[in-house]
Amino acid sequence: MGKNANSRRAVPYRATQPKRSSAQASVALDALNGHLGYFIRRAQIWVFQDFIRTLKPVDLSPAEYSVLVVTGANRGLSQAELAATLAIERARLVRLLHRLEERGLLQRLPSSADGRRHALQLTPPGRTTLARAKALAARHEQGLRTRLGAERHKLLLAALRDF
Amino acid sequence: MGKNANSRRAVPYRATQPKRSSAQASVALDALNGHLGYFIRRAQIWVFQDFIRTLKPVDLSPAEYSVLVVTGANRGLSQAELAATLAIERARLVRLLHRLEERGLLQRLPSSADGRRHALQLTPPGRTTLARAKALAARHEQGLRTRLGAERHKLLLAALRDF
Repeated sequence: MGKNANSRRAVPYRATQPKRSSAQASVALDALNGHLGYFIRRAQIWVFQDFIRTLKPVDLSPAEYSVLVVTGANRGLSQAELAATLAIERARLVRLLHRLEERGLLQRLPSSADGRRHALQLTPPGRTTLARAKALAARHEQGLRTRLGAERHKLLLAALRDF
Repeated sequence: MGKNANSRRAVPYRATQPKRSSAQASVALDALNGHLGYFIRRAQIWVFQDFIRTLKPVDLSPAEYSVLVVTGANRGLSQAELAATLAIERARLVRLLHRLEERGLLQRLPSSADGRRHALQLTPPGRTTLARAKALAARHEQGLRTRLGAERHKLLLAALRDF
């Protein structure tokens, strides 16, 4: 076989990447094949797109959902604690909280412990929306479990937990 | 133990999340604990931050690095193939290619096969920068392997590959 531009592409990349389209089936990834970050990023894009599709009925992004979940589960939570827990940049979190407040799902209360500190709290509509969102997110997760196989899903969850 | 706001926080979250700061150690993640997407996202942020730090000497983002790697490994690659391979949005890829062209690392050539189609190619400085970047990226990956343990690194790479 000659060393022309096509010989490089003879590697049956498709065999190990069954879910990729034919357009990119023959493109060599070279050094990217050894980078965990590349595959984590691909997985993250796929999972987030599926999450957004599944949660369309409640119109919540993954970040908005995580804010509602953590706020709902932690009474008297401050903005700083929320930012640290979810590793969301402060400026982005402020915009995010503002949108959720405007939708009437969340409110900021002065904390009893410290007057300057605002405690976050879900409103009654916020709690209702969160309950619907949790049901949809469970459906998304079940889809992921089916796609990956229950074993691989469990294994990934355990391996990524303490990153 | 009373059912006050603090009793919820008695769970020693830190024991299973040793790398998190004390500020968020006691915040309950609730439903997020079951979502693979949450942990994939956290891992992705961590890995990208480490990658950016490690590749500072060549000033390349993870996306820019992946563009240089794939362009370097695939002669006559088109913009469309690159976008599909890396799952980068077209508009974002155009900006990215423009920056790399301005830095003199990459050029667009009219393809011999199809005059309208632009083939991407690294310049000689682009190839030099890529070689340096690959050495730094290998160092980043080695750090990741040390952090996770070789077994878990290998396991994650295999489990995420066909997402």
